[in-house]
Amino acid sequence: MANSPSGDSVVQRVVRVLETFTPERTAQRASEIGRRAALPSSTAHRLIEELVSAGLLERDEDQRVRLGLRLWELALRGSTVLRLRQAALPAMERVQAAVRQHTHLAVLEQDEALFVERLSHPEAGANIARVAGRLPLHASSAGLMLLAFAAPEVRARVLTAPLPRLGPGTPTQPEQLRRTLTEIRRTGQVVAPGSVEGVSTGVAVPVRDAGTVVAALSVILPRITDPAPALAALRAAAGEIEAELRETRA
Amino acid sequence: MANSPSGDSVVQRVVRVLETFTPERTAQRASEIGRRAALPSSTAHRLIEELVSAGLLERDEDQRVRLGLRLWELALRGSTVLRLRQAALPAMERVQAAVRQHTHLAVLEQDEALFVERLSHPEAGANIARVAGRLPLHASSAGLMLLAFAAPEVRARVLTAPLPRLGPGTPTQPEQLRRTLTEIRRTGQVVAPGSVEGVSTGVAVPVRDAGTVVAALSVILPRITDPAPALAALRAAAGEIEAELRETRA
Repeated sequence: MANSPSGDSVVQRVVRVLETFTPERTAQRASEIGRRAALPSSTAHRLIEELVSAGLLERDEDQRVRLGLRLWELALRGSTVLRLRQAALPAMERVQAAVRQHTHLAVLEQDEALFVERLSHPEAGANIARVAGRLPLHASSAGLMLLAFAAPEVRARVLTAPLPRLGPGTPTQPEQLRRTLTEIRRTGQVVAPGSVEGVSTGVAVPVRDAGTVVAALSVILPRITDPAPALAALRAAAGEIEAELRETRA
Repeated sequence: MANSPSGDSVVQRVVRVLETFTPERTAQRASEIGRRAALPSSTAHRLIEELVSAGLLERDEDQRVRLGLRLWELALRGSTVLRLRQAALPAMERVQAAVRQHTHLAVLEQDEALFVERLSHPEAGANIARVAGRLPLHASSAGLMLLAFAAPEVRARVLTAPLPRLGPGTPTQPEQLRRTLTEIRRTGQVVAPGSVEGVSTGVAVPVRDAGTVVAALSVILPRITDPAPALAALRAAAGEIEAELRETRA
């Protein structure tokens, strides 16, 4: 519908505009958005005006453009992510209080791990994952858990694609990754030392809804820490989240 | 750009489609979306297909349509709400641990209070506010705080519009509301017994960023509870959030 001469639809152009915003770039001039979205200047300005009128974008006092509160509201209000993170937040807080390290909840999205919630602990070390951020499936404890229980076609795609090394412990050979995934399915847990960063061990368990793994719950431990207490806390939390999801099933 | 014969743009039609999703309605048939968005059937089906291709909507195994993870990611990733709630979450957890009642963070959006975070306490009573939900500015403690520090034109609009009663303590007369707002600006706090529900007292303080009130932090107490300890906890938390916002200013 409403395709431009270059063949892209208005919806695709809207996505390209939204994609120019990142955690490091929350405010931009209209001309910067147009350039980054590879849109002709007049097209970009007209589209941005429409998005501002609809509240999906906002202009601040310096005439810079930001993502709109209305967009946030519409994207969240009826979202399954909201149900998942509301079900998970109290249990995640208990994990964080017990383990005192970064606690994450991630889901599978377009062959990557998408982090939908993160609780940070002030005493905990650096941590690469953040809310609405992504990590490769093979190179994070949450990603490995999601990959182990993903549909066969997702696993086939990941196993035949390049497996870049993020940390010294990242599995970079398909056969090694395949064995790791089999072991994860057998034990129902991930303990991945150095998969993202050399100094850390990612630990993850699955969260199921109606029998299907819908998320991975993980903590990032200093590599010298015994992972057993964290795994016990994660398992208890996953059980609580699953009970909450049963109560709120749509 | 790309207006239909009825004069609405593709962007407006996208908003109408997204507006059909609510916390109670996270999955719909394409035909239901078209009817609720008041779009002709062929237009609705074509637009939904485009939104599914772009990942902004998703189809589940029953061919029902849901909001897409990609939409959630794009709306959140570069959003100022994400910065605000990440700055606020640790302090909100401390409030909740101390006060053991529902704790909220709300911002002003289109003359309403939009709740961007909520921590619920299992022992706390019923509570009407929820994440990505709204309440009238005059009829919630968070809303009164936001209204007290809103731009004069926002206050003028609210004071000349109908002031519906939500609870026995809702201010429904403009003169009464005006006096309440003056008092809030003078004291920097809201204590609003029965403004939403007869059995509860909403208590709120402002959160400032670069000198401007950007949010209200509130808890809902049983009406018989002394609000002083909750106000002290909220003030301490607001100070922590403001310090965090100073550190992360864009």
